[in-house]
Amino acid sequence: MTESSATKDPRYRAAVVDLLGVIAYGEISAFDRLAADAKLAPTLEDKVALATMAAVEMTHVASVRARIVELGADPFATMAEFAAPITAFHDHTQPADWYEGLVKAYVGDSLACDFYREIAEFLDPETRELVTEVLADTGHSQFVVDRVRSAIEADPQLGGRLALWGRRLMGEALAQAQRVIADRDALTGLLAGADTPGMDLVAIGQLLARITERHADRMAQLGLDS
Amino acid sequence: MTESSATKDPRYRAAVVDLLGVIAYGEISAFDRLAADAKLAPTLEDKVALATMAAVEMTHVASVRARIVELGADPFATMAEFAAPITAFHDHTQPADWYEGLVKAYVGDSLACDFYREIAEFLDPETRELVTEVLADTGHSQFVVDRVRSAIEADPQLGGRLALWGRRLMGEALAQAQRVIADRDALTGLLAGADTPGMDLVAIGQLLARITERHADRMAQLGLDS
Repeated sequence: MTESSATKDPRYRAAVVDLLGVIAYGEISAFDRLAADAKLAPTLEDKVALATMAAVEMTHVASVRARIVELGADPFATMAEFAAPITAFHDHTQPADWYEGLVKAYVGDSLACDFYREIAEFLDPETRELVTEVLADTGHSQFVVDRVRSAIEADPQLGGRLALWGRRLMGEALAQAQRVIADRDALTGLLAGADTPGMDLVAIGQLLARITERHADRMAQLGLDS
Repeated sequence: MTESSATKDPRYRAAVVDLLGVIAYGEISAFDRLAADAKLAPTLEDKVALATMAAVEMTHVASVRARIVELGADPFATMAEFAAPITAFHDHTQPADWYEGLVKAYVGDSLACDFYREIAEFLDPETRELVTEVLADTGHSQFVVDRVRSAIEADPQLGGRLALWGRRLMGEALAQAQRVIADRDALTGLLAGADTPGMDLVAIGQLLARITERHADRMAQLGLDS
């Protein structure tokens, strides 16, 4: 889809606005959660690492917000549409300690990124570039991997608990993603190819398989079973 | 003082490291406070404004941290030295509501900036440039001024309460600044001119007069008596 059709076709534009809205609200919530988790940090260095990840989320929000305005929509009203499922995700996955917070930051954000990047493949080049840019790694994955691996070495029981935690994060993420898709006609149209070269059911199945596989890879990097 | 003496003279270097440490810890605490205050925001737009101010603080921390490392010191140990007075300042000035949080963000950060900028005048050019850069306005002062002025118009009693709050912020800031100076020989040397072209008592008095005057200007901008 070309840039001109991105802004001219109202159904496509509505789908893009929805996508940017859910991404932006997701980043604002991630900011909140990372800022709160930073208070649990065992050292000042760890605290600064998490607070810096939080800060990167807000830089992304600024770019997405500008694009929603360019597309002629109210950015805050658009974002607020997605408050319920994203808040539900966070309410159902409150980290019990510093390590659950770290795993959630890494695994949760990565799941969201994988999903949005897959969708971005179906978008006009300008939107795709923006989505890819704002979902770039916050540069702190290695920090989480190092911290979690050394904690598990020191306390193998922690590994079992965090592996269960990873499965719960995945389950909740899928449940809330389904809710978003079910509630938003424009987004569903984009995915299912109502007006656009979207995906058929086989393609959606393959997408979920790829996302699950990458999740398993990440859990393995953390030293956890998936 | 030239760049070479900045890194060669150990007493001067210790003073600069102290100054950067207190600035960095101050910005980390400001991040914490702004992120917490963002949760009190009445609208999503206001929440994003405060979270964005918080994020800017962490960008500054990154620059200051890099410079402390260049000067051969441990950045986190240096910052941690200043945890007690900065935490005391925040404990003694916990905003009771959204508007007290806004006034604290604006007035408190501005007071700190004025003070550090005054000290920066006595530093080598490279450090002065860094300090000036990381203390640049987070670009959201106008947001605070607009919100506070319109709230006072709607509720004049709020103006009286916030004016008292502004005086309390000023008093606590001075108390904790004195504590920092009293505890840190190197910083005191810098200010009092032990080894450097520092300030005499008259100059320190004039500095405090300038800072108080600018505080009064800011309170007036908010529509508050100082």
